[in-house]
Amino acid sequence: MKKFINSVDDLVPDSAAGLVMAHADLLALNEDPLFIHRRVPKRGLVALVSGGGSGHEPLHSGYVGHGMLDAACPGLVFTAPVPDQIVAAAQRVDAGQGVLLIVKNYAGDCTSFQMASDMLDIDHLTLLVNDDVAVENSTHTTGRRGVAGTVIVEKMVGAAAEAGADLYECKALGDRVNASTTSMGIAFSSCIVPDAAAPTFDIGEGEMEVGVGIHGEPGRHRRSMMPADKIVAMLLEPILQDLRLERGRQVLLHVNGFGGTPLIELHLLNKLATDQLREHGLQVQRWLVGNHTTSLEMAGASLTLTALDDEMVSMWDASVITPSLRW
Amino acid sequence: MKKFINSVDDLVPDSAAGLVMAHADLLALNEDPLFIHRRVPKRGLVALVSGGGSGHEPLHSGYVGHGMLDAACPGLVFTAPVPDQIVAAAQRVDAGQGVLLIVKNYAGDCTSFQMASDMLDIDHLTLLVNDDVAVENSTHTTGRRGVAGTVIVEKMVGAAAEAGADLYECKALGDRVNASTTSMGIAFSSCIVPDAAAPTFDIGEGEMEVGVGIHGEPGRHRRSMMPADKIVAMLLEPILQDLRLERGRQVLLHVNGFGGTPLIELHLLNKLATDQLREHGLQVQRWLVGNHTTSLEMAGASLTLTALDDEMVSMWDASVITPSLRW
Repeated sequence: MKKFINSVDDLVPDSAAGLVMAHADLLALNEDPLFIHRRVPKRGLVALVSGGGSGHEPLHSGYVGHGMLDAACPGLVFTAPVPDQIVAAAQRVDAGQGVLLIVKNYAGDCTSFQMASDMLDIDHLTLLVNDDVAVENSTHTTGRRGVAGTVIVEKMVGAAAEAGADLYECKALGDRVNASTTSMGIAFSSCIVPDAAAPTFDIGEGEMEVGVGIHGEPGRHRRSMMPADKIVAMLLEPILQDLRLERGRQVLLHVNGFGGTPLIELHLLNKLATDQLREHGLQVQRWLVGNHTTSLEMAGASLTLTALDDEMVSMWDASVITPSLRW
Repeated sequence: MKKFINSVDDLVPDSAAGLVMAHADLLALNEDPLFIHRRVPKRGLVALVSGGGSGHEPLHSGYVGHGMLDAACPGLVFTAPVPDQIVAAAQRVDAGQGVLLIVKNYAGDCTSFQMASDMLDIDHLTLLVNDDVAVENSTHTTGRRGVAGTVIVEKMVGAAAEAGADLYECKALGDRVNASTTSMGIAFSSCIVPDAAAPTFDIGEGEMEVGVGIHGEPGRHRRSMMPADKIVAMLLEPILQDLRLERGRQVLLHVNGFGGTPLIELHLLNKLATDQLREHGLQVQRWLVGNHTTSLEMAGASLTLTALDDEMVSMWDASVITPSLRW
C-alpha cells in the first residue's frame, strides 16, 4: 500500500485539520467530537448538517460554506460518523430555524443519523439521498445508494436555506431534487482502504465493474472494456429509463470522477454525454465536471442527471463559497 | 490500458470541447488550430497565453478566465503545442497592449514558443517558468523543469494584467514570482500515456521516485516508502535550501496532487507541511491544495513554496474566475 499516511488513526483528523488550515477564512474545526463547520455562523436561517465515511472527499467537508453546508461530520474511512459528532455539529450550527440532516442512504449512516435524531432536542428533519440507479439493494444498503447526486442536493438545498426557506421547504426541495436525480457509475480499478491495506476488490486487466458503488462495492456486472462513447451510452440508458424525461426537458449533467481518473478523461466523458443527451432531445443547461464524490484512488467515473425546474436552476446558480464549489 | 477514451487522436480535441461545454459562460473553443480562449475578450490590457502538452489538466486550459490566462494551447499528451496554435491564440486575444507568453521549461515547449515568437508580428514577451528544484537538467529539459509553480505564476501575473500592468511589468512580476517559487515532487506510480498504452516507468511495490517530473521522468533517486511526515521533510529540505528564507518570511504553500492521489492525503500533506514550515519559523499565509498540475493518473504529489511580498499577496488575493481556480 503506497499512500501519504502516518498512521491510520491520524489520517482523518489530520486531513480535516489540513483542509481547515487551507481555508481558514471559511472553515473552523471542532476536534472532539470531530466536525468541520463554517467559521462565521448563520443567523435566523435553517442550518444544514451532513456527514458520512471519509474517503469520498471533497464530499462532504469540501462543501461547508456560504450557500451549502453548515457542518460536515467525517467518519473513519468508509465508516459512518458516530451520533455524538452529528449531535454536537447540529447544536453548534443551529441558528434558531432548525437543522436539516442530509444523509446518504447506507445502513451505517442511517443508523448514526437516526440515533443522533433521537438525541437532538432542537427542531430538525432528515433528508435521505438515494440517487444510484445501479442496484436496488447492496452490501451496504437497503434500497438505492446515495452517491454523486448528493452534491447536487446539498448545493440546491444550501442555496434555499441561505435564501430564507424554512425547514419544511428545505426538506421538500431536497426530496424533489433527490427524486429528480439519478446516477450510475463504473470502475476500472479498486480503491485501497488504509485500514485494510489491500484492494477492496480484484478486477482483471481488461474488465470494468458496471454500476460500482463508492466504496468499491459490486454493481450490476463485470464486462470487458469498451470505447468511451459506448460506456457513456451504457451508463445513460438506465438513468434515462429511471427519470423518463419528456423531450426538451432541461437537465443538469454531473460527470463525477472517483478519484483516480484524470480530468482530461472526465472532460471527454462530458463531451460525449452532452452530445448523447442532446441526441435524446434533452436540453443540457448546467454542468458539473470533476472529482466531487470519490472513492479514494479508485479509477472510474459516474454520470448523474438532474431534471431541472425553474426553482432548481435558481438554487443551482445562486452564489456558493466553499473549498470545492465556488461561484 | 484502462481509460475513458475513444481514440488517441480524438482525446485532446474532444476533451477540450467537453471543458468548454461545461464552462460556456467563461470559455470558447477554437477548433483549428486548437486553443481555448476567454469568451469575452479583454480590452486595452495585456493578454496572457500559455500552453503545453496535454495530460497536466487542469493546467493550462482550466486557468483561462478573468484574472488569469486569456488563452491556452493544448498539445498532444505530453507533447508541446505547435507554433501555429500559439500564434493564432496570441493574435486572437491580443487586446492592444501586447501578449505575454508563459512557457514551462521543457525543450519542446521552448522550441514551439520560440518559433511562435519569431512568427508573431504583435508586441510580446516570453516568461519562462522553471520552479522544480529536483534536477538541474533532465530527459526533457536543459535547466530546471517548470512544474506546479506555473499555476502560482499564472495566477499572480494574470491578476496584474487584469489590473492594468503593462507588458514589461507583467514580465517583471512573473520573473520575480518564478524566482521566489520552488517545487519538489514524489511519485508512487507511473502514468500511462494513451499513445504508449504502457506505464512510462516501472516502480516496485514499496518504492518512491523522489524528485519525479510531471511526465514521469526520473528525479533524484528511488527509495523505499516512508511515513508522510518524513516525506514532507524530505521534500521541504531542498526547497528551503533553494529559497534561503529569513525567519518570519510570509510564504504561500501549494500542495499539488499528480492526479492519482486522493484529496484526503493531499490535505494530510498540507497539515504536515504547514506545521513543519512553521517550525522552520516561516509564516504560512496562503494555501492552494488540490490536483492542479497533474501527470495523468500518476499517484504522488509535489510541494511548492513561494516567498511572498506585498504585491504578490495582492495579486494572489485578487478575484479570479476560471474553471479550476475561482474566488
